[in-house]
Amino acid sequence: MDANISPYELRQAIRRGDFTTNTSGYAQGFVQGNLAIMPKEWANEFLQFCQLNPKPCPIVGMSASPGDYMINTLGKDIDIRTDIPKYRVYRDGQLTEEVADITSLWTDDMVAFVLGCSFSFEEALIADGLEVRNITEGVNVPMYRTNIECQSAGRFSGTTVVSMRPMKPKDAIRAIQICTRFPSVHGAPLHFGDPAEIGISDIATPDFGDAVTIHPGEVPVFWACGVTPQVAIEAARPPLCITHSPGHMLVSDVPNSRLAIL
Amino acid sequence: MDANISPYELRQAIRRGDFTTNTSGYAQGFVQGNLAIMPKEWANEFLQFCQLNPKPCPIVGMSASPGDYMINTLGKDIDIRTDIPKYRVYRDGQLTEEVADITSLWTDDMVAFVLGCSFSFEEALIADGLEVRNITEGVNVPMYRTNIECQSAGRFSGTTVVSMRPMKPKDAIRAIQICTRFPSVHGAPLHFGDPAEIGISDIATPDFGDAVTIHPGEVPVFWACGVTPQVAIEAARPPLCITHSPGHMLVSDVPNSRLAIL
Repeated sequence: MDANISPYELRQAIRRGDFTTNTSGYAQGFVQGNLAIMPKEWANEFLQFCQLNPKPCPIVGMSASPGDYMINTLGKDIDIRTDIPKYRVYRDGQLTEEVADITSLWTDDMVAFVLGCSFSFEEALIADGLEVRNITEGVNVPMYRTNIECQSAGRFSGTTVVSMRPMKPKDAIRAIQICTRFPSVHGAPLHFGDPAEIGISDIATPDFGDAVTIHPGEVPVFWACGVTPQVAIEAARPPLCITHSPGHMLVSDVPNSRLAIL
Repeated sequence: MDANISPYELRQAIRRGDFTTNTSGYAQGFVQGNLAIMPKEWANEFLQFCQLNPKPCPIVGMSASPGDYMINTLGKDIDIRTDIPKYRVYRDGQLTEEVADITSLWTDDMVAFVLGCSFSFEEALIADGLEVRNITEGVNVPMYRTNIECQSAGRFSGTTVVSMRPMKPKDAIRAIQICTRFPSVHGAPLHFGDPAEIGISDIATPDFGDAVTIHPGEVPVFWACGVTPQVAIEAARPPLCITHSPGHMLVSDVPNSRLAIL
């Protein structure tokens, strides 16, 4: 598949079953989103959870009403049941299957949420000449559970998961400036420096993703991460919840630059 | 003197000799500026030096033409020869006297520069609820020579002097966001964390100003400082140069908020 494929063509290929892999690096310049789908009796509380915790849970799109699987605000003919390469199905908080199509699971009370993801700000950092270590090293970004409590909403609660990118302080300052422009893809970092201050005991052992090299003179810089809502959902144990499989995102028609508030 | 005096009334009091002290804390909300005056054959090079090094040397006003001592762009009836409480006179780079009026030293080839100062961004930080340690402790901000080279312009060259304010990382991130809005008062910090990386060997011994307490969990945050051009001027040794005496600033009619680019 040509990496420069348009978001629409990519979604059509996914729908046909011709594209089944990680979407990272495809249709560059366009917003890719995390997915969370759940029944409406859970969705209202989840929406409130996202509203209270916008840095880890930035909503960029959602079903217009329960049962609506077309997410028109994010692009042309987006069917959230078929246009993502791989879904994860959780029942009572347990991962039970990975599937390529959730049409058979969709019901009239389902609500889909699309949340901003770090791909957008990583693109902005790289465009500015900064190095993003996980991309340089070709691995998943390292992610860590922290002691930073989320605001609870109904059955949803938990602590914030963060992603980490090591940088020289000068580059970290520039990254803070750039990411401040993008509040809907996690915004400015939450912390830099001593991992223990946010409850991370071993920076070399991420809870999710892969470890990356931290060079002398660099400090770890920590961003709120979209794994936070996934962890909260797993803990809340809704009877049915569907997410994307990691790296297999919804690719929208929204240019990343549209997320910049300035 | 009432701290809420207007900038104009304060300048009039200074001109009459009724106000002779540090201007810090007076006419709050209005831009106070550093002063540098020199003959035009040096001023052109100094202007270029400032243009090349805008973070330590942000020009907020200057003589419209050589010999012009009224700085109308910064406020009503500002006579740069009389409206500053205390001046320092340097001859061949050596401080020779401190005076309250420079009318007798002013000649037709003199050019005055007014440079932005940290008072403006400190006010913005405090308004946002951040602590500024040097203000809390009632001392001058600690300042340090660094190994960060300025861009040279003619006879003006040197390394950057920085001011330091200790903060928790979370507050430092917020301070970076706030100060980014104020490029004409030194803008975002240049560095945080390890002082040795920018050539500071002992954080407890500032080269200028006073040491401040750094609490556990805080990192030193470093901003480009208006002492930088003063050091460059002293090294360049113009035959005559006049600056303000530290803390005895030009108080302008420009609201601090006007310096915000956003």
